[in-house]
Amino acid sequence: MINYPDILHNIQLEINKVSERGQVARYIPELSKIDPHKFGMHIIDANRNEFSVGDSEEAFSIQSISKVLSLSQAIGLIGEELWTRVDVEPSGDPFNHLSLLEQENGIPRNPLINAGAIVVADILVSKLKNPKEDFLTYIQDISGDKSINFDADVAASEKETGFRNYAAANLLKSYGNLHNDVDTVLDFYFHQCSLALNCKQLTKLFFVFMNRGKCLQNNTYLTTSQVKRINALMLTCGFYDEAGEFAFEVGLPGKSGVGGGIVALLPNNYCVATWSPGLNKKGNSKLGMLALEMLTTATKQSIF
Amino acid sequence: MINYPDILHNIQLEINKVSERGQVARYIPELSKIDPHKFGMHIIDANRNEFSVGDSEEAFSIQSISKVLSLSQAIGLIGEELWTRVDVEPSGDPFNHLSLLEQENGIPRNPLINAGAIVVADILVSKLKNPKEDFLTYIQDISGDKSINFDADVAASEKETGFRNYAAANLLKSYGNLHNDVDTVLDFYFHQCSLALNCKQLTKLFFVFMNRGKCLQNNTYLTTSQVKRINALMLTCGFYDEAGEFAFEVGLPGKSGVGGGIVALLPNNYCVATWSPGLNKKGNSKLGMLALEMLTTATKQSIF
Amino acid sequence: MINYPDILHNIQLEINKVSERGQVARYIPELSKIDPHKFGMHIIDANRNEFSVGDSEEAFSIQSISKVLSLSQAIGLIGEELWTRVDVEPSGDPFNHLSLLEQENGIPRNPLINAGAIVVADILVSKLKNPKEDFLTYIQDISGDKSINFDADVAASEKETGFRNYAAANLLKSYGNLHNDVDTVLDFYFHQCSLALNCKQLTKLFFVFMNRGKCLQNNTYLTTSQVKRINALMLTCGFYDEAGEFAFEVGLPGKSGVGGGIVALLPNNYCVATWSPGLNKKGNSKLGMLALEMLTTATKQSIF
Amino acid sequence: MINYPDILHNIQLEINKVSERGQVARYIPELSKIDPHKFGMHIIDANRNEFSVGDSEEAFSIQSISKVLSLSQAIGLIGEELWTRVDVEPSGDPFNHLSLLEQENGIPRNPLINAGAIVVADILVSKLKNPKEDFLTYIQDISGDKSINFDADVAASEKETGFRNYAAANLLKSYGNLHNDVDTVLDFYFHQCSLALNCKQLTKLFFVFMNRGKCLQNNTYLTTSQVKRINALMLTCGFYDEAGEFAFEVGLPGKSGVGGGIVALLPNNYCVATWSPGLNKKGNSKLGMLALEMLTTATKQSIF
Repeated sequence: MINYPDILHNIQLEINKVSERGQVARYIPELSKIDPHKFGMHIIDANRNEFSVGDSEEAFSIQSISKVLSLSQAIGLIGEELWTRVDVEPSGDPFNHLSLLEQENGIPRNPLINAGAIVVADILVSKLKNPKEDFLTYIQDISGDKSINFDADVAASEKETGFRNYAAANLLKSYGNLHNDVDTVLDFYFHQCSLALNCKQLTKLFFVFMNRGKCLQNNTYLTTSQVKRINALMLTCGFYDEAGEFAFEVGLPGKSGVGGGIVALLPNNYCVATWSPGLNKKGNSKLGMLALEMLTTATKQSIF
Repeated sequence: MINYPDILHNIQLEINKVSERGQVARYIPELSKIDPHKFGMHIIDANRNEFSVGDSEEAFSIQSISKVLSLSQAIGLIGEELWTRVDVEPSGDPFNHLSLLEQENGIPRNPLINAGAIVVADILVSKLKNPKEDFLTYIQDISGDKSINFDADVAASEKETGFRNYAAANLLKSYGNLHNDVDTVLDFYFHQCSLALNCKQLTKLFFVFMNRGKCLQNNTYLTTSQVKRINALMLTCGFYDEAGEFAFEVGLPGKSGVGGGIVALLPNNYCVATWSPGLNKKGNSKLGMLALEMLTTATKQSIF
Repeated sequence: MINYPDILHNIQLEINKVSERGQVARYIPELSKIDPHKFGMHIIDANRNEFSVGDSEEAFSIQSISKVLSLSQAIGLIGEELWTRVDVEPSGDPFNHLSLLEQENGIPRNPLINAGAIVVADILVSKLKNPKEDFLTYIQDISGDKSINFDADVAASEKETGFRNYAAANLLKSYGNLHNDVDTVLDFYFHQCSLALNCKQLTKLFFVFMNRGKCLQNNTYLTTSQVKRINALMLTCGFYDEAGEFAFEVGLPGKSGVGGGIVALLPNNYCVATWSPGLNKKGNSKLGMLALEMLTTATKQSIF
Repeated sequence: MINYPDILHNIQLEINKVSERGQVARYIPELSKIDPHKFGMHIIDANRNEFSVGDSEEAFSIQSISKVLSLSQAIGLIGEELWTRVDVEPSGDPFNHLSLLEQENGIPRNPLINAGAIVVADILVSKLKNPKEDFLTYIQDISGDKSINFDADVAASEKETGFRNYAAANLLKSYGNLHNDVDTVLDFYFHQCSLALNCKQLTKLFFVFMNRGKCLQNNTYLTTSQVKRINALMLTCGFYDEAGEFAFEVGLPGKSGVGGGIVALLPNNYCVATWSPGLNKKGNSKLGMLALEMLTTATKQSIF
């Protein structure tokens, strides 16, 4: 039996000792205000036991973590057709997402880089009656938590400064891979990224990917095969150009966001979320990565 | 003595024989309507003698040719400071202008690729009181022709479909290399590109670069050193990724536009403009390139 | 209980129906002689039960599959130090392994692309007394099969035509990331790639990676953590620029070779090898990929 | 009338004041031994008047400057056919010559980058009876100086450390764009680059490119059109990724070498050579560039 409380306790002790906590994201002004000393971690296992430590009930901006959820909803709506508009390969290079887009005629490398997530957002804008509301309802339903909401300030902050996303969306448009207009799609995308959740809520949300497509309330959202694919994408593409490193050190499918959150899961076993706002050079939470390494080292479990 | 009338006559005979005239630009809807059989050519020499053949007095959209003029006006306004925001090297690669921008931290390779010309447009928007009007006046003054004007339909057409330019401008903005807002700068840029001139007018405009900075009316616009630099840029960067080929085959500084126009010059000797709307695969006028090759072969003169 | 015999039988029936079998590798002359209609598949489970179908006992050139084994031996010899000379990220781009090497100062992206495997070969050449013999012994010991050997003709054939590997090795040397001389390292590398095994032997060899570091004979070769890392690398980097696709469709760590072999494994469950010489455009066995997809679809098991 | 003696005198005064002289090339061990304080400059005009200053009669390794001469000899031997194996466009990027080669299927961007010059060397090896001897004779004949010779120590030094050139040659070979074997071609290439000349000899050698194809002894080596093309290539590609800068600041066709030499010319006017061993970050002679800028500023002459 794995003793999660002890493991979490030890992780927190180690985390507290670390003085170099990384850099809080600055490019979205609202995010730069967060206290870098925050740290939370929450685990839910397959039997719905829960364990937590630190600031696990304080909400933060999930940012790129939301890409897994928009992908999940889009797959539910249009299925395999999605893969005609976005590929499933790791992007490899740190700096040239837009250049890859140019080289590959407007087909983003995968749905977890910004360009790919913008295409997914475009699909949701096309298919949902009230895109923002319907996406929010989807999140609330899967997690069973009606209190989850967008953070309007964060969305507005990103709208004013998200020039790189405007560049990506316009480039996609030039290749015919954006069907709605740029402003509408990015308004949806910035709201999606602004979702505010705490670690506990995140694990309840991602329970569905750990549990073969069934959510906490036992409703089925995805087929086994769809879950396999989403988890495979998280493993190969979930951590920007540090995906290989995360697979290598941690060995779990997961997704990070520049808000400092990370969620990861061991299929059929547990789902875990961490939050620490300081980022490493690759844009992933420095202490979150460390905490998850300690977790899989302590449990001696990984998908490999 | 060079017999320009005979040379032009022979060039037209040869051009008429060519059946494969290239592809009229399609990405700007207004431009796709032009008759591909148009051909005009006009020469003005250092003594202001003029020679022409074909449709040399029919106006067309000069598009990228305008980049030399906005550069010229910007150099006049801020001088060497301009080179802190844009480099002077050929771009080399055909497809990855945006990727180069990412690799080089938002400093465009040179002022004659789109990204570079957008930075130059940004400078003019910052420095001119009434940017569009003042730029138009500059053009009218240098050429001594008050009838030159923007083509509002072409500008509007490009505004609706210029997603790649919106991508470039937003990417520049993300690097802090665009000081005004994207829409304002691109409105100026699309107008600048929409300038409608005929071959005759183009040679009168570019006379200033052939004549060491003095325009047809003998007013001085640029120093000898500034003219040297602008001509050097035309030679190394004036024909997209076919600049080497043009230098190699023709051997004159020049600039092409997707409207099918090309202007070129032999310093202190003559200035020449051609117009044929069909483009080769690299985006330069197919028959214009051929006509200029025939011209320098017949005259046995080039800068080399 | 999973009925492997039935599953294998059904896979062979499906495979037999496929007329388009891909292209046998041509760049190594010896390999181009292989009959494209060969097909074999072998499974060994955690209880050492074995199941097979087709040409599963006919030896073929394992080529890049050998990279996992040289990596494994090198990790055993120098441990974590290896990661100072080679990274662990997917390479992303299909075409530009050498360009990545230039951009990243001679540190190959991962040990499963050619440049990375050449660095690993260099390590073995430095550390082993009789590199080729000692590596062969290592293979024979892990698999418990003394009959395994190099194919001298294949090694010689690659030596004569492996200009791209000579290019990579010289580039590594120019960055100081090759300590022995180019010819010595490549002689080792070409021999390593020439190893001739059949599907049955391959599964016995890779049993060690499925079985947490213990080989069929119950000797321990690697720690759990080392196995996790090697399996993670196979998943993220084992199929050239189709690694994402393989993770997405099959969901197992694995490695392919241009000889048409693929080996894959579900940790603690089974190890499987397929052989079909025809390759798809990305250089992976066309029917091998298909057979493994059918296997994980039928068993409903994957690491995700 | 231009007063060359005064101009050269003033340039030397300025050069003497500069304390930061750049870095002597280190990657060829023999070159790293050169005294960084050397400076020489020599001019020959169209009337064969000569002017010099400093160490203008001390020989140095001309390195890449030799690429213009091998190109010239190859054009004389096979004419336009050469352009099927090498392109005429600037390479643009500083770091990725090999990656460009991969992207462009083994056709080097131009004959003045290493990969292109290696293809030209391959052509000479194929076409000349005694390649090294015949090339040397060609150099001696054009310059009218039988004392010019290879520097065997420099050639040997480069052979031992030229791994990047071995990489390029092998990559060319993998694309079928090298017809002879790698070692033979590189032996020729390293000798060609090791040619030892002083500034005075260099100007006599390049007189042929300034004088429309006729050498100092009035023998015709090239047609006017061939000279135009070679000069155009020097202008657009002669200074690595600083070609644009050189055209922009100096405005003359020219070629630099890592031995610290630069040769440049104003067609029909003069040919000039400089030597200062310290290089700038782009690999061009720091003070040589400065001296040539001062020369064209003082003479107010350039091709533009």
